[in-house]
Amino acid sequence: MPLSAQEEPKGAPAPSEIVAAAPAADWVAIAAEDLLVMTLAPDAEGKPRQVVIQLMPAPFSQGWVHNIRLFARSGWYDGISVNRVQDNYVTQWGDPNYDNPEATGTPKPLPEGLKVMGEDEYAAQISASVSPYLWFRDHRVAFDGFGKSESVQLRPVPRRANFFDPYSPIVTFSSGFPIGTAFSPNRPPELGWPVHCYGMVGVGRNYSPDTGSGAELYTVIGHAPRHLDRNIALVGRVIEGMQHLSSLPRGSGALGFYTAEEAAKRTPILSVRVASDLAPSEQPAFEYLSTESDVFATYADAVANRRDPFFITPAGGADICNIRVPVRRAE
Amino acid sequence: MPLSAQEEPKGAPAPSEIVAAAPAADWVAIAAEDLLVMTLAPDAEGKPRQVVIQLMPAPFSQGWVHNIRLFARSGWYDGISVNRVQDNYVTQWGDPNYDNPEATGTPKPLPEGLKVMGEDEYAAQISASVSPYLWFRDHRVAFDGFGKSESVQLRPVPRRANFFDPYSPIVTFSSGFPIGTAFSPNRPPELGWPVHCYGMVGVGRNYSPDTGSGAELYTVIGHAPRHLDRNIALVGRVIEGMQHLSSLPRGSGALGFYTAEEAAKRTPILSVRVASDLAPSEQPAFEYLSTESDVFATYADAVANRRDPFFITPAGGADICNIRVPVRRAE
Repeated sequence: MPLSAQEEPKGAPAPSEIVAAAPAADWVAIAAEDLLVMTLAPDAEGKPRQVVIQLMPAPFSQGWVHNIRLFARSGWYDGISVNRVQDNYVTQWGDPNYDNPEATGTPKPLPEGLKVMGEDEYAAQISASVSPYLWFRDHRVAFDGFGKSESVQLRPVPRRANFFDPYSPIVTFSSGFPIGTAFSPNRPPELGWPVHCYGMVGVGRNYSPDTGSGAELYTVIGHAPRHLDRNIALVGRVIEGMQHLSSLPRGSGALGFYTAEEAAKRTPILSVRVASDLAPSEQPAFEYLSTESDVFATYADAVANRRDPFFITPAGGADICNIRVPVRRAE
Repeated sequence: MPLSAQEEPKGAPAPSEIVAAAPAADWVAIAAEDLLVMTLAPDAEGKPRQVVIQLMPAPFSQGWVHNIRLFARSGWYDGISVNRVQDNYVTQWGDPNYDNPEATGTPKPLPEGLKVMGEDEYAAQISASVSPYLWFRDHRVAFDGFGKSESVQLRPVPRRANFFDPYSPIVTFSSGFPIGTAFSPNRPPELGWPVHCYGMVGVGRNYSPDTGSGAELYTVIGHAPRHLDRNIALVGRVIEGMQHLSSLPRGSGALGFYTAEEAAKRTPILSVRVASDLAPSEQPAFEYLSTESDVFATYADAVANRRDPFFITPAGGADICNIRVPVRRAE
């Protein structure tokens, strides 16, 4: 917790310095079709509040992602609100009159054309679009693709840190997102699933067999609730404006819902747009550091072994949710 | 994310139900000497804001805990403010003029009698006051105390979940706090250290060899920054009123400090008192579920294997920071 910008002692590069030095070719543009721009009502000082969400890439959660674009394009999200803020858990938005113990009106009709997904769609067959570096519980391997009979070709690489995970046999990254998997040598490709890190966006649902439509969304505002992995669909993550959702007043009702008396605390959502539907001059442009790049593996190792000046004892390991995929505005 | 209090399907007990059924004898009273009552200025609606912090028990961080009681008893904390709120990281409070790039005044003189700690005090020899259940990377064992030559007596118990940890060889609990250790069979007691979970309170410091005095404190408001373990002193955790620190507006300066232009966002801290110094009728009373109890081990297993009705796929494991020690107001 250094308190000022005093001159720093010299040391190994910090993870942020490794990212800053990454070659331009290792940054991947995010398609405008995969960006949602959510505009909240201005804050108490009248300042605008905008949140940008990157939607989950294939092969994960594509049915829900379809629905979310449909909700956005039909204008269904316009006029909904943030109805639930539970400390160290989630901020959730949707129709304040839908299945809410504090509802005072009638629910908004859903648009036509929504898909209904099965629980098996919380995971998907992972493909070659995963990081070439997989972090097993006790070592790191390089993924060399699929061989005969679709067996998995892995090659050990020097172990530089522990990436033990209590929730998944293996953790890795796919197209910029953290995933868990049971991927193993000499076996066909296995299922993978996105994991509940800070800022990830998921789909509220009711009890099984309901899987949610995408009308109710939430983002994680506390320690990763990884017990929700494979139990709820994850559809993306907040890449800008997270503070507008994480710093909202907590609700005092059950599960952090705002009570009827607190209805004025519900933050109005003015609009949600797919970025590709905006005028070109209004489209935000973002890129992420390729999780398939060598520089990303170097970055992950540095996160796990902090040797920059503030640190006196490197951890020798890192939690998948602390290996945050670098995302930045594209020029 | 069930949305309402609809009738729940039947299932295995939820972790919260196991805690609710715990015998009264398994709840441990927290001494008033170990509670800090921090009163913030009222919020924008004029509502009072109070935060209660439980100080770290021995053998950890006792030099800093000494200093913190001294700061509180000398009135030094009265009139300081929250100066830094960094999203998914920390909220930090202290003297706004101390080593702050946005300072506009002169620092407050420190009280007499402060101890200066060495970096070796970030960890301590763990003693028999640890949980009888230790979670090794791949199994659980019962701790039966110290035997000949202080070797450690461990006995395997049925493995019910994974408690792999990327940051420590073993995780366990000591007197209600989560700790990491390298404790092993047939070796003398090893060092243990408290870990940076959500809500834990730590001591801001400058570059090594500075270890901080306790004048600058922070609490974790995001995913556990476990890379800070053994690099900063942890001195306790917030047990009530966490939302008053986690929902504050984020600072837009470096490291989340409020800039000089945002100085009005610094939340004033009116007072900080050791609870035992308050009139008996004003002393808050809290208790925690003994981490040395069997019911706590049952609770931890249930956290790792959620089978209550909302869940369709139990994780089969849990992160130490998701095994939150139950704390409640005592009657």
